[in-house]
Order: sequence, then structure tokens, then C-alpha cells
Amino acid sequence: MDERVQISMLLDLYGELLTDKQRNIMNLYFNEDLSLGEISELNNTSRQAIHDIIKRCHKLLIGYDSKLGLLEKEDSYNNRKKLALKELTALKEYINDEKQLKLLEKIKTDISNL
Amino acid sequence: MDERVQISMLLDLYGELLTDKQRNIMNLYFNEDLSLGEISELNNTSRQAIHDIIKRCHKLLIGYDSKLGLLEKEDSYNNRKKLALKELTALKEYINDEKQLKLLEKIKTDISNL
Repeated sequence: MDERVQISMLLDLYGELLTDKQRNIMNLYFNEDLSLGEISELNNTSRQAIHDIIKRCHKLLIGYDSKLGLLEKEDSYNNRKKLALKELTALKEYINDEKQLKLLEKIKTDISNL
Repeated sequence: MDERVQISMLLDLYGELLTDKQRNIMNLYFNEDLSLGEISELNNTSRQAIHDIIKRCHKLLIGYDSKLGLLEKEDSYNNRKKLALKELTALKEYINDEKQLKLLEKIKTDISNL
């Protein structure tokens, strides 16, 4: 996985464990694609300070994930969900009854929302 | 939910964010049902120190959950999973074909393992 994408996902999962200031800087850099220079201007601080915060927060996020493992859990969970939906679509081929088809569509929606 | 049960669940979700010593003491108290006196003997420290660690860790676990909200997510997720399984069982009533029944059973297993 691309490192920036991975950090952005870690930020979704564990961003709340950072301080508001840390999360804000990480969001600007990894989700809004602002440069170090732009972020340092916005925060009225040095480019180096922003660089250090980003480096430290990246380490913090990786540390949380090495302990809680939510990234892998979510990934494996999404794969198994896709499989179940694929199997339900296969089962649909065998069904003609309108009522049964409706129930099957409801099950697919429920699983999609899981 | 009973407070002890809730703390035990929080410990499952966030225990890895505590230190080994903290997690061990919390496990002994909330999962193994040891008394403060027994835990203080095992750790060669005072009853009061153990009491303080438990109180502080409880606060830490609640703090993590107020930020990441995994307890509620898991609960709502389990309820929706139960609903999908119930609906699949209802769909089963309509199916007679052996091959379709096998596929449906596989889907149920896949969803149970989600």
C-alpha cells in the first residue's frame, strides 16, 4: 500500500488519539495535500517544527496500530464481507420468487451496512 | 451493562494500550476475580497502590473508548450481524434444492465469521 494512503487510513482509525493540533497538521499534510511550507505558515511556526510533528505523529499512529491492529482487522473484514455479498449474488441466480428475492436484497443491504 | 463486564470488554478492546504491568493487574482483578489483597501480594506492593492503578487504568480505558468508540461500534455491528443471520434463516425456509442450501449455509458461516 502507498505510504501516504496508509497514513491517511491510520489517521481515520486513530486520529482521535492525537491532540487537536497534531490531528489538524496531519490532516492538512496527508488528506489536504498542503506542503510543509504552507502548513508552517498557517500554524505560524517553522517548517522544521511541522516536519518533526508529522514524523512523531506518524510513529504514534504506527505504534497504536501495532497494538490494536485495526487496519488489518478492517481489511480482512472487508474482504470477507465482499465474499459473502458475492455468494449472495450467486444464490440470487437460483431464486425466482418475488418475496424471496426481496428478502435476499434486504440481506445484501444489511450486510453492506455491516 | 454491569460495570465489571463493561470494564472487562474495554480491556479486551484497549488492553494493549496499557503497560504489561497495568494490563496484568486489570486482568487479575476484572477477569480472574482476584481481590485487591491477593493482587498486592502477587505484586509485592500495597493494597492502596493496586487500588490506584486499577482506578487510573479504568479512567484510561474509558478515555480511549470515548475517543475511538469501539465498544459501541462492536455492539451495533453484532446486532446487525444477528439480524442478517436471522434473515438468512428465514430465507432458508423457502429453499429446497440441496446445492442452494449448501451455498446458504456457507454464507451463514461466512457472516458468522465476519
